[in-house]
Amino acid sequence: MSLAGVTQDEVRRHNLAALVRFLHDHGSTSRSELVSHTGLNRSTVGGLLSDLVAADLVRETEPVGRGVGRPSYGVEPVVDSAYVLAIDLRVDRTIAALVGFGGVVIERREHRYRKGQPREDRIVAQLVEVCHDLLRSAPPGAVMVGVGVGVPGLVRQPDGLVRFAPNLGWVDVPLGEHLADALGLAVPIVVGNDSDLGAISERLRGSAVGAANVIYLSGQVGVGGGIVIDGNLVMGAQGYAGEVGHMRVNPRGRACRCGAIGCWETEIGEPALRLATGCPNGMPVAEIVARAATGDKTAAKGLRTVGGWLGVGVANLVNILNPDVVVFGGTLREILPATREAVSAAVSGALTAPGEHVVLALPALGDDSTLLGAAESAFAPLLEDPLGVIAAGRGTRLVGLHAGAGPSPRG
Amino acid sequence: MSLAGVTQDEVRRHNLAALVRFLHDHGSTSRSELVSHTGLNRSTVGGLLSDLVAADLVRETEPVGRGVGRPSYGVEPVVDSAYVLAIDLRVDRTIAALVGFGGVVIERREHRYRKGQPREDRIVAQLVEVCHDLLRSAPPGAVMVGVGVGVPGLVRQPDGLVRFAPNLGWVDVPLGEHLADALGLAVPIVVGNDSDLGAISERLRGSAVGAANVIYLSGQVGVGGGIVIDGNLVMGAQGYAGEVGHMRVNPRGRACRCGAIGCWETEIGEPALRLATGCPNGMPVAEIVARAATGDKTAAKGLRTVGGWLGVGVANLVNILNPDVVVFGGTLREILPATREAVSAAVSGALTAPGEHVVLALPALGDDSTLLGAAESAFAPLLEDPLGVIAAGRGTRLVGLHAGAGPSPRG
Repeated sequence: MSLAGVTQDEVRRHNLAALVRFLHDHGSTSRSELVSHTGLNRSTVGGLLSDLVAADLVRETEPVGRGVGRPSYGVEPVVDSAYVLAIDLRVDRTIAALVGFGGVVIERREHRYRKGQPREDRIVAQLVEVCHDLLRSAPPGAVMVGVGVGVPGLVRQPDGLVRFAPNLGWVDVPLGEHLADALGLAVPIVVGNDSDLGAISERLRGSAVGAANVIYLSGQVGVGGGIVIDGNLVMGAQGYAGEVGHMRVNPRGRACRCGAIGCWETEIGEPALRLATGCPNGMPVAEIVARAATGDKTAAKGLRTVGGWLGVGVANLVNILNPDVVVFGGTLREILPATREAVSAAVSGALTAPGEHVVLALPALGDDSTLLGAAESAFAPLLEDPLGVIAAGRGTRLVGLHAGAGPSPRG
Repeated sequence: MSLAGVTQDEVRRHNLAALVRFLHDHGSTSRSELVSHTGLNRSTVGGLLSDLVAADLVRETEPVGRGVGRPSYGVEPVVDSAYVLAIDLRVDRTIAALVGFGGVVIERREHRYRKGQPREDRIVAQLVEVCHDLLRSAPPGAVMVGVGVGVPGLVRQPDGLVRFAPNLGWVDVPLGEHLADALGLAVPIVVGNDSDLGAISERLRGSAVGAANVIYLSGQVGVGGGIVIDGNLVMGAQGYAGEVGHMRVNPRGRACRCGAIGCWETEIGEPALRLATGCPNGMPVAEIVARAATGDKTAAKGLRTVGGWLGVGVANLVNILNPDVVVFGGTLREILPATREAVSAAVSGALTAPGEHVVLALPALGDDSTLLGAAESAFAPLLEDPLGVIAAGRGTRLVGLHAGAGPSPRG
């Protein structure tokens, strides 16, 4: 709304959204804190809260605070009021969860593929199965807001077409559409890039809380990046921004799956790590790092080499984007601690001003950054128009309940 | 205002700002267009326009449009109502201009340094002289909004300290403060990075109009970048974002002034171009390009090499940021047309999805991108709070007029 005008309805929705967003992000709080956070006056906040309480999204508790001045009513999000399904789709497994309002994981499932990577239709079938299973744990009366899916590949926005996911072997797969048809739920399905979603959740609830400029790196076979600038995820023109793994850093390096020579991921991805350390295919990254730490000189030397390249690319990103925090996710969670000296040295080789500022961090959400980011992307409609979404959801749910079948089928 | 609440005063200021921004950016328009652009109703727009007309910022003209329906009043910005001073500070010269509301250049000065690059205090003294000279051309009664300065270096935001401008030989120079003291004007002085300002103006009035995601490259001795994402300039954590010239692309390359090896600017900056083409120091880039075009094989080969490296870096930026447009400014304005084939080939080596989308463009504002961007940065307060700035400026101006000395001195 930077250019357009504002109507009264928009103002009210905006203010309701500000309260709901704050409660979702921060959890329990007080009326006074909401007043000071929003800059609205006390009676306006009171009126908005009444609406949210009536919608069962929010609960008011006994006055808290016994110090000077009036005690202030406590306000807390009702976790069971609304939920999403979140899916982290990986090359070797899927992780799925039912996540409640406030970002609380209610139920979680992990499913490893037994014999190699299945075809897309098989993956969709598995996702449908796990989603229906999770929905049986949905709190009674709760409104389902949406489904969020993270994919390791280029995802076009806003339609969520997976343009290119080399490690899944996918080109132009309309995953969101297929999943919507197969799931038959009357809620939006949001498909996003795994690193983008990792950046969102680490900034909201992880290692980069409060940081406006964040890069989340996700190492797997390839390396992806999620970039947050001024608190907003950078999508780029069509949603493909963040393909930092295809930054060319070594003109005399290896051929990349993308067709170019010397891409960053050919120096720091899983295959590059195995090659550099002389470790066999299939050995987990954690084990390679452990080998290097316990006297395997080839592994130690290879790991240092990978660390040096990791630093070169991070220094480039620091110079280009001047981030507050870089978070090292996926396989880089294992690699950073073992190579921190080399990485820090390379980052010191960035320009002094941005280089001295940046923090190199591990993901506080551990292995769940993408999963929780997928949940956030699915919660977006509720955070933008809380009462509208709850009202629509209740209508839907009533139909579903009468039919005795949980969330109602699409159409 | 993404999280905070909104008051009525803010709504009115926001709506006034929306109208003024539109008029500044687009020039003459009509009431209907403002109605449809802002989404506000006709009477609200009429009321806001009355206030702007009363402030002399806007003029209403005879109804335009003779088609079906009511004719709509024309609305135009009053160029002479408000102005800024804009300065493009370069290594070999300064360019300064008096720019009126709507982004119209009223008066322009260019001053080449005669014997090498002067010291900072001498530059400030020259800027003061040229500014006072320009102020004599200020329209009578017009409100001075601010001063904008573009500098080829790292500029800390929001205070405008020049942290590092290697080609000016500056480290930690508080240019804005020095200039404010020396100029003695009661308006804000905004110091920005030259490429950032180029990006702003090319997006507003140049080759990237309507594009949400833009990279403006500025080639000089070094190479800078201004990055626009979703319509907003990327500053990074402290204002240093965009140092694309220090992206390391060639680990076996040359030492860079920044201390690292193989930075992009060591392959595509002016010195690299001279080295590659075998042309002498001091030869203008346009002449080097002309040599290559007229049979000098060494020059032609060298130019192709530089073009190849230019492409590598652009492809990296395309992968990282998925821009709509890359604009080639400064020396790259001469280099791109002569190396477009090599650059395009390298960009085709980026990932297909973002690579097929990006447009490689020359700056439509020619050599003035930074100058006009500096003007925009100085106009910002007027575009955020039009009536507030005009009221404050009128108070100031009255004092000045009584003293018979144009814009009043500070304090």
